[in-house]
Amino acid sequence: MATTYFSKRNLQFLLHDVFKAEELTQYDYFSAHDRETFNLVLDSATYIADTLMHPYLKEIDRNQPELKNGRVTVHPKIKEFLKAMGDAGLIGAGFSFDHGGQQLPEMVNSLVGFILMAANNGMMYAGLSSGAAHLITSFGNPELNAFYVPNMLGGTWQGTMALTEPQAGSSLSDVTTSATPLPDGTYKIKGQKVFISAGDHDAADNIVHLMLARIDGAPKGTKGISLFVVPKYRPASDSPSGFVDNDVVSTGVYHKMGQKGVPAMHLTMGSNDNTIGYLVGEPHHGLPYMFQMMNEARIGVGMTAAAIATAAYYEALQYAKERPQSRRLNEKNLLDAPQTPIINHPDVRRMLLFQKAVTEGALALLVQVAKLYDLSHVLEGEEKENAFLLLDLLMPVAKSYPSEMGVQSVSQSLQTFGGYGFTEDFPVEQLYRDIRITPIYEGTTGIQAQDLLGRKMTTKGGKAPQLLFAEMSRTIAEASAYDDLKPYADQLSAELKRTQDVVMSLMPYAIKGDTERYLSDATLFLELFGIIVVAWQWLKQAIVARRALLTQNPQGDDLAFFEGKIHTMKFFFHYEVPKTLGLATRLKDPEVLTIVTEKELAL
Amino acid sequence: MATTYFSKRNLQFLLHDVFKAEELTQYDYFSAHDRETFNLVLDSATYIADTLMHPYLKEIDRNQPELKNGRVTVHPKIKEFLKAMGDAGLIGAGFSFDHGGQQLPEMVNSLVGFILMAANNGMMYAGLSSGAAHLITSFGNPELNAFYVPNMLGGTWQGTMALTEPQAGSSLSDVTTSATPLPDGTYKIKGQKVFISAGDHDAADNIVHLMLARIDGAPKGTKGISLFVVPKYRPASDSPSGFVDNDVVSTGVYHKMGQKGVPAMHLTMGSNDNTIGYLVGEPHHGLPYMFQMMNEARIGVGMTAAAIATAAYYEALQYAKERPQSRRLNEKNLLDAPQTPIINHPDVRRMLLFQKAVTEGALALLVQVAKLYDLSHVLEGEEKENAFLLLDLLMPVAKSYPSEMGVQSVSQSLQTFGGYGFTEDFPVEQLYRDIRITPIYEGTTGIQAQDLLGRKMTTKGGKAPQLLFAEMSRTIAEASAYDDLKPYADQLSAELKRTQDVVMSLMPYAIKGDTERYLSDATLFLELFGIIVVAWQWLKQAIVARRALLTQNPQGDDLAFFEGKIHTMKFFFHYEVPKTLGLATRLKDPEVLTIVTEKELAL
Repeated sequence: MATTYFSKRNLQFLLHDVFKAEELTQYDYFSAHDRETFNLVLDSATYIADTLMHPYLKEIDRNQPELKNGRVTVHPKIKEFLKAMGDAGLIGAGFSFDHGGQQLPEMVNSLVGFILMAANNGMMYAGLSSGAAHLITSFGNPELNAFYVPNMLGGTWQGTMALTEPQAGSSLSDVTTSATPLPDGTYKIKGQKVFISAGDHDAADNIVHLMLARIDGAPKGTKGISLFVVPKYRPASDSPSGFVDNDVVSTGVYHKMGQKGVPAMHLTMGSNDNTIGYLVGEPHHGLPYMFQMMNEARIGVGMTAAAIATAAYYEALQYAKERPQSRRLNEKNLLDAPQTPIINHPDVRRMLLFQKAVTEGALALLVQVAKLYDLSHVLEGEEKENAFLLLDLLMPVAKSYPSEMGVQSVSQSLQTFGGYGFTEDFPVEQLYRDIRITPIYEGTTGIQAQDLLGRKMTTKGGKAPQLLFAEMSRTIAEASAYDDLKPYADQLSAELKRTQDVVMSLMPYAIKGDTERYLSDATLFLELFGIIVVAWQWLKQAIVARRALLTQNPQGDDLAFFEGKIHTMKFFFHYEVPKTLGLATRLKDPEVLTIVTEKELAL
Repeated sequence: MATTYFSKRNLQFLLHDVFKAEELTQYDYFSAHDRETFNLVLDSATYIADTLMHPYLKEIDRNQPELKNGRVTVHPKIKEFLKAMGDAGLIGAGFSFDHGGQQLPEMVNSLVGFILMAANNGMMYAGLSSGAAHLITSFGNPELNAFYVPNMLGGTWQGTMALTEPQAGSSLSDVTTSATPLPDGTYKIKGQKVFISAGDHDAADNIVHLMLARIDGAPKGTKGISLFVVPKYRPASDSPSGFVDNDVVSTGVYHKMGQKGVPAMHLTMGSNDNTIGYLVGEPHHGLPYMFQMMNEARIGVGMTAAAIATAAYYEALQYAKERPQSRRLNEKNLLDAPQTPIINHPDVRRMLLFQKAVTEGALALLVQVAKLYDLSHVLEGEEKENAFLLLDLLMPVAKSYPSEMGVQSVSQSLQTFGGYGFTEDFPVEQLYRDIRITPIYEGTTGIQAQDLLGRKMTTKGGKAPQLLFAEMSRTIAEASAYDDLKPYADQLSAELKRTQDVVMSLMPYAIKGDTERYLSDATLFLELFGIIVVAWQWLKQAIVARRALLTQNPQGDDLAFFEGKIHTMKFFFHYEVPKTLGLATRLKDPEVLTIVTEKELAL
């Protein structure tokens, strides 16, 4: 039986009621749009998701890509999907009209990703193409733009991000793929890349790698890495087809625990000394270019995690409504009574509310961050800088909270099914496998934590957290006007204070330059910070819901929706927020325990 | 490259130094044994684990059982393994000499299971046979014993626990498989069973199901369920082979996310009206019989979880020692320096210590519980009753803590590997899938929580928690004698008080009979209780380690081992114990949030 895999109503609520996407259309860049065009794009994504993606969720998982005779074969639906995405203008949704895009805000564009990933996260091809194309439109010359971008946005050529190497995973400064200048201004590329998602497959006519490499003689470390376009087939006027093979060899395809629909490739460049790369932008600027794209990519991973967890939640909810098991706890002795659906057991309702609180809270945070992303592009002067600072501060949380809590949420979805959840009879075991990569993609949780505490909290004298706390204080003040929300506003206020105390207790280590000590529990700080930021998002949603209940006299589904929002906000504050007590206790604790010998660990 | 998958030294430490298994040999029943025989049995298990199990970990996962022409084929190594186990006397290790066993304590027997499951948890066949045979030796008549038990303990016949039905998962009182009395005292069995582990396979010559069914006209509910032996092939004097097919049809094999080595079967009995069952014990006593075996089965699941998490920890530790990535945080700018092994990053060490703290804490708790199991069998009078009460109280924790925290621990093992952890190149992704069933097997975590708070905490006027708190107070007093342990003894003392406060705040709901409210957060109570119980286990271990450091002047590995124990105890108290703050806050919070409509959840 078909289940829902996301709530359209919730997307409308977040996009329009809470975050007022339409406000963006007052800026020139977005002025061609209105509420209608935003909704049309989401409907168009939903149509593709419903017809070309969700029906193939299991099938794509069960038929993983295989490398045969040097080429990777993927499920035939993927070609159809990519073409439909290209035709609907969805791969280029976030690109400017100049680049053949729809010039839509990231708020809308990232929700397109959410819908698609909720339907079938094994079909993540389009997002990769759009990310790669965005590097070209942002930093590439007109020739690269003209030749590659239309095919990538059209869905016939696949784009990839080719960063990771066997010896350089989280540490991009250790990239060793080499680029040797040729007289015609192109470069000979030699090296290996691993874990390149969609790095080769037969659903695209060409694969366009946006690849990091080191030009011969470049400075060491992060300042010597350049960005190249390295296609699978490169243009060649002397070839009848107009293309020649570019010596990018598919050395292997990783077999993964999840996200099996998309091949993760091991690629070897230059084994026949015949791989050509085309420099994007200036030499040695590869890492800064990549980092400018990082926020977009991390919103994408956060959305993927939120989407998978949302799909799993709706599966669990459906099952809980239909599966009879045992009697209600207050009616244990009524043996003649029929068994009750498990949704009537308080422990099951607690598990479901946990899933709802985590997934909708994560999604709200992501829409918040996407709005900041948009504002940071259209605003000017100090307002622009402030939007950037807030965006950068929230980004590690918006990537990690959905991922880490999403893993836990899907685990509770699986648990709701009992033994059936562990079988391939239901899709939840697949979603459990799929989501596990999200705390690793695009910077592990540990890396995000170091970014948050080691960089974002402290740059410009801590201006970003000041801005955030001011924003949160505005929400707190607004919520305090409603009697039933005031206790939660007060609670969030106390949590802000607690977080500030934690930061103050850690600062001395940063000041004396003991980074290892300062960051040793950074991951716990990220967890704490995630809870209060998502609590803030819940309070924002509750204010809008409370206002609607007071002014719109909603009935039926509307009434239930708004009451459900307020209820889930309360659940988050009563069940999730108290976790900060333990985290803050540990974070303020002076005892260092991460110094230990290998032997002590091993014996 | 071969990695260790458990610490032999730690098993010795727990069995002999902390829990003093040899003390059991003063009782008649165990008097044939000594420290040497205990160790020989563990060595024998290790030999089988090393040679017949661990080398096939991946292979058995990749070649899952398939149902072909009505029979299930499993990996050929399984037959060899079962025979080796039978020959070594390990299936019957815990059985009395009378029944052809070795009359070993559960302390030793359950550690045999730990070693085997750490090597390859997909080969869980022997534990199932021993559990099933134990039902026969405990409640079956001499004929059943003589005919079935030797073959089961010898490893040629497979035993199963056939409880679950499609409509009766957690609710065994709703079992509907029927048993119709025949004139010769046997019964015709008709019905279906699902999720029967090892329920059919070609590595055994016969499958012996210990099956719950309802005799025609039996009372409703839990008081009308009987236990039967239902073999795949039943004895028949008129058949040339001595056996005929017993009409137990393999209707399907579940494809599961993990533990793929062992088939989970859907079985149909009586489709040709030709399934015979042999009553075990008295009619209508099936559930009480099963419940008497439950503690043993739950120790088994806890051990499986602890074993999988331990194996994953050693994989992660090995990888962390070998994988270079980035520079140390205090040496970030030394670009010429080689990359450092990731074990030198504090966040990685924190992840490893978390895994060590959880897995060794869980294992200690399980050995504690196994010792109580043994004592409850050999003690007399009030001492016996007290051991039973303590065992029963700790059982839900000893099943759930290793399972729930084991899932988190393996997740951190996977995270230690980064992207490689998500691939099939390393075994950790398999262990991540395998362990996820343990919070479901033998009563889900929610069921365990209801058992703990709804039954074990309150029976006999709360005598069991009083006994436990007295035991813990003894440990606290003992630890207080050592300066460096005293702060942790004090902390545990405060945690006991906190737990008692939580119980007092919940008791009014129980007293007024509002079970739904009383148990609505039972799972959080189980989590809280698990943390303080494992903290107690860590303090016990630290006392023994401290004493050894003070009296034995250990050097080298011995020194590192004992210091590692004290260090990990501290880690547990500084990182894990503070989680009780949030849990207690929620548990004492009067706001009820698990009452919510389906619509509020769904929209």
